[in-house]
Formats: sequence, C-alpha cells, structure tokens
Amino acid sequence: MVQFVSVSKILDLVNKHGVENVLKGMTEYVEQDYRRWPLFDKTPRVASHSKVGVIELMPTSDGELYSFKYVNGHPKNTKEGKQTVTAFGMLADVDTGYPFFLSEMTVLTALRTAATSVMAAKHLARPDSKTMAIIGNGAQSEFQALAFKAVMGITNLRLYDTDAEATEKCAANLDGKGFTITICRSSEEAITGADIITTVTADKQKATILTDNMVGSGVHINAIGGDCPGKTELHKDILLRSKIFVEFPEQTRIEGEIQQLDDDYPVVELWEVITGGAEGRTSERDITLFDSVGFAIEDFSGLRYIYDLVKQDETTQDLEMIAEPADPRNLFGLLEVKQAAE
Amino acid sequence: MVQFVSVSKILDLVNKHGVENVLKGMTEYVEQDYRRWPLFDKTPRVASHSKVGVIELMPTSDGELYSFKYVNGHPKNTKEGKQTVTAFGMLADVDTGYPFFLSEMTVLTALRTAATSVMAAKHLARPDSKTMAIIGNGAQSEFQALAFKAVMGITNLRLYDTDAEATEKCAANLDGKGFTITICRSSEEAITGADIITTVTADKQKATILTDNMVGSGVHINAIGGDCPGKTELHKDILLRSKIFVEFPEQTRIEGEIQQLDDDYPVVELWEVITGGAEGRTSERDITLFDSVGFAIEDFSGLRYIYDLVKQDETTQDLEMIAEPADPRNLFGLLEVKQAAE
Repeated sequence: MVQFVSVSKILDLVNKHGVENVLKGMTEYVEQDYRRWPLFDKTPRVASHSKVGVIELMPTSDGELYSFKYVNGHPKNTKEGKQTVTAFGMLADVDTGYPFFLSEMTVLTALRTAATSVMAAKHLARPDSKTMAIIGNGAQSEFQALAFKAVMGITNLRLYDTDAEATEKCAANLDGKGFTITICRSSEEAITGADIITTVTADKQKATILTDNMVGSGVHINAIGGDCPGKTELHKDILLRSKIFVEFPEQTRIEGEIQQLDDDYPVVELWEVITGGAEGRTSERDITLFDSVGFAIEDFSGLRYIYDLVKQDETTQDLEMIAEPADPRNLFGLLEVKQAAE
Repeated sequence: MVQFVSVSKILDLVNKHGVENVLKGMTEYVEQDYRRWPLFDKTPRVASHSKVGVIELMPTSDGELYSFKYVNGHPKNTKEGKQTVTAFGMLADVDTGYPFFLSEMTVLTALRTAATSVMAAKHLARPDSKTMAIIGNGAQSEFQALAFKAVMGITNLRLYDTDAEATEKCAANLDGKGFTITICRSSEEAITGADIITTVTADKQKATILTDNMVGSGVHINAIGGDCPGKTELHKDILLRSKIFVEFPEQTRIEGEIQQLDDDYPVVELWEVITGGAEGRTSERDITLFDSVGFAIEDFSGLRYIYDLVKQDETTQDLEMIAEPADPRNLFGLLEVKQAAE
C-alpha cells in the first residue's frame, strides 16, 4: 500500500503543527541533506516543453530513499483560474524499488522553497539582519516571510509588487502574525534599508527587478523568481558585484540569474559553505546572492519531512498501487483470484 | 481531482471486459500510436541504479497528452516474496500541465507488452502462423499467449521453462481457454514446428536461450526478455541471420539483443513497417526478429486505453492531488480557509 497525502491533509498537518514550526522543521531537514550533498544522485530534471508550458520530472536518491517530483509550469493558467505550478511527489525504497508515499506538492513546494531560502540566508546574510524586502507578492511570498521569521527572527517586511492587489493580499495574510509591514510603491522604496532582498516575481521573461545602483553593500539577495531559460530578475551588473551561491551549477547556469554570465564564471556551491568546504560571506560589505532555481534534493527533504510527520497518522489514505500476487511469477493468477472473490 | 485506478480496479475492469477483448483493444491503441510515432516526444528513460536494482521514469507526450511511468527492476525481490517489477503511471493534460489520471501499471505493463508483441507479429510473422513456442513461463507468459490468440488466432502453444513449476503454472492458468498446449523439456523441443518463438525469460545476465542451429527459416522471434545492458537471450549468430525490428534504436542498442552487435548494424524501426515506410518480411524464408525492450509510447497507449475504459466509471477513486485556491496567487490563503472550515 502507498500512503497518500492530499492537499486537504497537508493543509491540516501544517495548521495542526503551526506553519512556522513546519517551516523550521523543514529547514532542518533541508540542511541535513545539504550536509550530505555528495551522497545524492544528481540527475538533471527531465523536461517536456510545449508552446504554453513545461512538465518536468525531478528524481534523486541518497542510496536508501528515492524521490521524484512531477511539476508543471504554465504561466497562462492564471488567466484561466488555474495554478501556474502544480506538483506532486513520491518516495520509494531503493532496496526493493517499491514506492510507499505519495503527496501533493503544490503547497509542499512553497514550503520547501522558503525553507531552502532561509537555510541559505542563515549561512550568507549578515547575522544582524532585521529587515527583508519582498519584491513579488504572489503565491510564495507569505511562506518566505514566515520562514525568515521562524528561523532568523526577521519581523520587518517591506513589500512591493507591480500588482498592488497582490501586495494587499500578502499583507492581509500576514496580518496579526508578528510582522511590522511597510507597503511600498516601487522596488527602490522596498529595498531602502533592507538587509535581505527576496525577489520572487513570476514573469516568464527577462525582467530587471533590481538595477545595479539600487543595491548597497552588505545585503543578501535571495533570488527565487529567475528559474528557467530566458527568465531572470536581476541586472547583470549586480551579479558582477556579488558573491554568487548556487544549488547545482550545471542546472543554475541554464536556469538561474547566472545564465547572463559566461559559462565558467566562478560561483560557489551552497552545500560547500554549509559543510565548511568553501567560504560564504567574508565581510560586512559583501553582497551575497543566492541564485535559487529549486533542486530535486530539496523536494526529497520536503517529502522526507512530511513523511516523518504523517507516518504514524492513521487518517491518511492508503492506495493499492502495487500488485502483490502470492507467487510473484503468477501475476495472471490475480485475475482469477479477483473474479472468484466477487 | 485525479482519477485513480488501483490494482483491484484494473483486475475488475479486465475481468468485466474479458482479458482477450482488453488485449485486442489495447493492441489497436498501440498500433494507432505507432502510426503517429514521429509526433511523440522520445526522451530516453531516466534511470537511477543501485547495487540491487533500478528505478526508472519513462515520460512521453504526443503534444496533447503527457504520460510517464514509474517502474523498478529488482531481480532479488522474488526471493523476498515481492515483485521484480512494479509500476504505476500517470496521464496529464499538456495544455494546462495538470495531471488527471493515475493508474497501477504492474498489470497494465504485462498487458501493453503483450499487445505490442502481437502488434509487431501481425506485421512480421508469416500470415499462416499457427504455433507459438513460449520460452520462459513467468509473469508475462499468459498475457503473451492470450494476446496472440485474441489478435492472430494462435492456439497451439509449446511451453518451456528451466523451472518446471513455472510451466505448470502457465499451463494451468491457460487451461480451458481454447489452447492446445504441449509442455516441453527443452528449448529445442519447444521450438520444433513453431512459427513464432516468444522468449520471455528473466535472468539478469547474458543467457543463450536459443542457439543458432536451433532456429529454422521462416520463423518470427518475439524477444522480450533481453531488456537491459548485460541481459540478452539470443546467440549473436541468430541476430546475424535475422531481419531485426526495434522500437527505438537509441534505446535498443543499449538494452536489447542488438547490444551484441556493432553500433551501426542495420535495424528497422517497427513504426516504419506499420506506416509502410520500410519493408517487413519479404519472403516465407525470412527470419524476422522483434527485439523488444519496452518503450514509453507503449505505456502511453496502455494508459490511454485504460483511461478510455474507466473515464465514465463512477466507481473509481478521486484523489485531491492538485491545490485549487480561488485566487491562484493566494496559495497561502488555503491554510486559513481550511482552518476556518474545521
């Protein structure tokens, strides 16, 4: 039997444990897996492109557990009242090849993305950081805000979106959750005095959310929105002034902000900072940039965390996805056994 | 909502419609998709290997529908009372990226493999074929026999397996289903007088089920068991005397019988025979060989067929796998809506 976690179930779980606790717990799981990064199978994602979007499969394995995520990206869906991104994922046992856990991952992806962002910022931002600008106030923004509060104690938020309604929605969702929120009218206003700048816009094209002269020394930039070929958020000159940290260079050079740079431009792998093999921030004046595109290992961590939360839970659904004939050679016999049982 | 078909449900469906009718219907769907072969996205499968087995994802798309199959291969599972191969698969809408159909595929893979075999044999074997040898009488064997009966009217079977119990199991399962069955004590005995030879053994190593002097002119060989690097069933000399037909050369040269031949050894793509672009059998004396390894498009056909059978069926299970916030930008709002509803 495969244990299934629906959207409703994951919402219940997050509410039951508290979203900040879940984000904190998931950040620990992501960090655990970053610490053993070299262990993982790092296959590039497999993409099937069409004129209107992309469907991707993102597998990985640590040699004991195997996971994959199915995820689509269809920017035009929003106009039809559908999600741009939907996702589900699975865990399987490497030793038998049997899948055992299936989960929705639309909500889970928002949680693991926020957990990964704050895990990176914990290692890269100035320790005295107090204020975060969030540019792009769509579906991911509240999860980012709450993760940075839960893990780093960031409570001052400066919000900006080209769509004022998105900002209002974000501010309303975060109301009463312990933040001091400033609604801003431009990116420039939003980043004034910010220690951390999170860019999480959704346009599927080259955009320049931040230009070079806007970004002062000492900030940490958490760049999430640029995550496919042709989609970037930052002006190239900011990249050239920053220390750049990435998940998996082979993927980030195609999908991240650094697609604007030469293929051999030096970048640092985040896991090496976390395990102490590479330097992160070395001065208060450094601009650090986490050029995040999302990687399969983070989905693995997210699934592993949720599975640990639910595995003792009797309210999840069991799916009969695996045929279990008494004699493995006698698959056909199942047909007659089933008929006889009717 | 995603419509889910469990193992029990698929057994019920096959019993309700009759296994021969299902095999006949699926053969038509496989042939339809072979006729529009160039349309499909032909990504190689993505494999994650461990010491004891492999887990693979096999995606494809015709531009309207997207499918993938998850499948493992763990030969040692049988000793632990588990299946060597388990599988499940999914259909999604290319236009929105939304998945809508999830099915077990252990049983479905056996059905689509048999459907593909007989579809190939219909185009390649001598039209007057009456007798089939089946060497290897494990989990796939009955499905092969019934497909060849349903589509080509083959009712004379000659069975052989190194494990006599497997042969007894196969013969017992096919008893009363309109076959004349001869149980044989060797491969050589099994193929005597056979018009079609099906080899479907499971050893994960180079084996020589058939040697060259055993195979006479005019036969069609349906070679299913050799399907991964290092696993073959036929002696190289048989290959050199045969006209070889394959699903997708890039994959078959790695996984099929032809891994024993040079990389540029001429083979014919099966879809070209079916669309009339290439010659199949040209004489009664040709030895034709379908070197089958299984390809994603066949899973696509199998899922498409089963979906058409079940889509009107109210007894399937709906899974809430996709988050559907009223406002797509307000994923976070789902948490509060859910809490308020408790």
